[in-house]
Amino acid sequence: MKIDGRHYRTIWVAEDGWSVEIIDQTKLPFSFETARLTTLDDAARAIKTMQVRGAPLIGATAAYGVCLALRADASDAALEAACEALLATRPTAVNLRWALDEMLAAVRNQPRENRVASAYARAAALCDEDVETCRRIGENGFPLIREAAERKPGETVNILTHCNAGWLACVDWGTALAPIYMAHNAGLPVHVWVDETRPRNQGAALTAFELGAHGVPHTIIADNAGGHLMQAGKVDMCITGTDRTTANGDVANKIGTYLKALAAWDNGVPFYVALPGSTIDWTLQGGADIPIEQRGADEVTHMNGRTADGEVITVDIAAPGSPAANPAFDVTPARLVSGLITERGVCAATREGLEDLFRNETDMTSRRSD
Amino acid sequence: MKIDGRHYRTIWVAEDGWSVEIIDQTKLPFSFETARLTTLDDAARAIKTMQVRGAPLIGATAAYGVCLALRADASDAALEAACEALLATRPTAVNLRWALDEMLAAVRNQPRENRVASAYARAAALCDEDVETCRRIGENGFPLIREAAERKPGETVNILTHCNAGWLACVDWGTALAPIYMAHNAGLPVHVWVDETRPRNQGAALTAFELGAHGVPHTIIADNAGGHLMQAGKVDMCITGTDRTTANGDVANKIGTYLKALAAWDNGVPFYVALPGSTIDWTLQGGADIPIEQRGADEVTHMNGRTADGEVITVDIAAPGSPAANPAFDVTPARLVSGLITERGVCAATREGLEDLFRNETDMTSRRSD
Repeated sequence: MKIDGRHYRTIWVAEDGWSVEIIDQTKLPFSFETARLTTLDDAARAIKTMQVRGAPLIGATAAYGVCLALRADASDAALEAACEALLATRPTAVNLRWALDEMLAAVRNQPRENRVASAYARAAALCDEDVETCRRIGENGFPLIREAAERKPGETVNILTHCNAGWLACVDWGTALAPIYMAHNAGLPVHVWVDETRPRNQGAALTAFELGAHGVPHTIIADNAGGHLMQAGKVDMCITGTDRTTANGDVANKIGTYLKALAAWDNGVPFYVALPGSTIDWTLQGGADIPIEQRGADEVTHMNGRTADGEVITVDIAAPGSPAANPAFDVTPARLVSGLITERGVCAATREGLEDLFRNETDMTSRRSD
Repeated sequence: MKIDGRHYRTIWVAEDGWSVEIIDQTKLPFSFETARLTTLDDAARAIKTMQVRGAPLIGATAAYGVCLALRADASDAALEAACEALLATRPTAVNLRWALDEMLAAVRNQPRENRVASAYARAAALCDEDVETCRRIGENGFPLIREAAERKPGETVNILTHCNAGWLACVDWGTALAPIYMAHNAGLPVHVWVDETRPRNQGAALTAFELGAHGVPHTIIADNAGGHLMQAGKVDMCITGTDRTTANGDVANKIGTYLKALAAWDNGVPFYVALPGSTIDWTLQGGADIPIEQRGADEVTHMNGRTADGEVITVDIAAPGSPAANPAFDVTPARLVSGLITERGVCAATREGLEDLFRNETDMTSRRSD
């Protein structure tokens, strides 16, 4: 997507042909800075310090981390050590392990002199594949927005989203935001209600930044506001991402998603969830089986912000001594989801809907027979 | 209620018998300080700068502002000027006008030499009446908590609340928190989930402070978290306040209340609203008629907090240049409300329920014939 009219991905190979550049997301939204990764350590640090975040982007950065490691030492031992170091950066990120496995498969059986080139080729392909998946999600979701626009000619289509499921979490396009970018690029009048998404504020910080930088009209709202906006007829549809979708169509996503789905349901507003097929967990039969990560209380009781002097600091915002709880995700039951937007098409949030689109997945068949 | 074991009201006459002391709420939650009001200007400034807030407390402070004004000059002209100055501090606060009308009625026909004493007597009575109303709300809501406790012997009753409807908004007890204080004081094992209540964070700052100071176990959560907690069976009931209740039982309250009511309904969790009869607007037949205040975007894009140095500052927390919207209230339809807890008893959130309790109100009859 674009920043000030220039096209960016979140990660790319620099003009020198080997070093890797990223958008330093720890500096967002207050400053747009890129960082150059030239060593394995740089890549590992970028993931660990969250200069890059979002499962697809973490995977892509790890893939390039392997490339940078192999440039220094293309031995089997160095390859293994690199994968181990990268895996340790965010041990629970599923995409990280998957990307490293892909890199291992691509280079392990190559002679040493070919490994660097093979690695860069596979890393580039991983990135392109992610872009293509997101682009297809965008293409498949786009008609839903176009139809909403056709139902109110000349008026703006208002779309509510939660958290950041945009291109900053991926390599380009994003998931939930991909259809919105497509609609905007096609000249449809779209406007996005951006839930700030406490406690980490990914909406107000990242989604608002990327929509603004690309020129998509949007308005930040407190997470509390969406229900009222739906009651007032100011939301035509909701689109969110998901971290994990169970076989029956339940979706786990950033905490608060469930509340918006309830409000959408209560007000007859369509509620769509956008996802790559890779987030479907065929081993889980329903959302109650999804473990919910409990994060630190500090994220609730403290807030990052920029002072009048331009310094970014952390301030305490809660009654001192009061404890806080911080469940990071919730589960939206499939009954509240109007449809799932995937790279293979849009389907009902049901087992049948998902199987119709993804029934060729060997993964699915094997796991279902467990 | 208590702070560090000592009983406080939010406003009281000092030991000198005439000056007025308040808890300076602009310093909360980071510092507990009282302020002394000795002139009309002090009282007007306290309301304007939100050293005191919450409709009942604003009314009480204005009443004492009249007392302080009359000490300096008990003439008719001074009385009128004082009321005018106080009314201008928060022109939309209904209680403010009501309290000033009460004060005028109490002193206007008195000889000058009696006016000061009459004013102090009426102001003290206003405060006592508010305390009594809140105490009765507490007594009437208490059995609901006791019954919940009896359904799970030996276990903690978990109650979710939104915004601040506690004693800091009133003179003592509060509305939504009054039954909780009663239950805690009676030794019932209660624990309160405190919605932080963005954008102004009255939950994390004020509700958490007052519960903590009185010793009531509580946990601050992001506004996004309540739905998940209800899904997980961790909420036994919700109790919130309301700013306005329409004749059919719809309730306007702080933005986000509706989302919690939806989640409660979806999970079979009782959702109660506590209110003094004075907040019932018999002229409105349903929540759609309630005008919703739109507040400044700054409250969404900026946040007050305390730095590591102990300084309280305002930081920018959103993508620079992104607009924000800030509807301050939403309407929870009566169908989602399990019951209304009033000073006259608990009733269904219906026209019949309200009329049964309040049908002696001359106000009601006259307004309904409009």
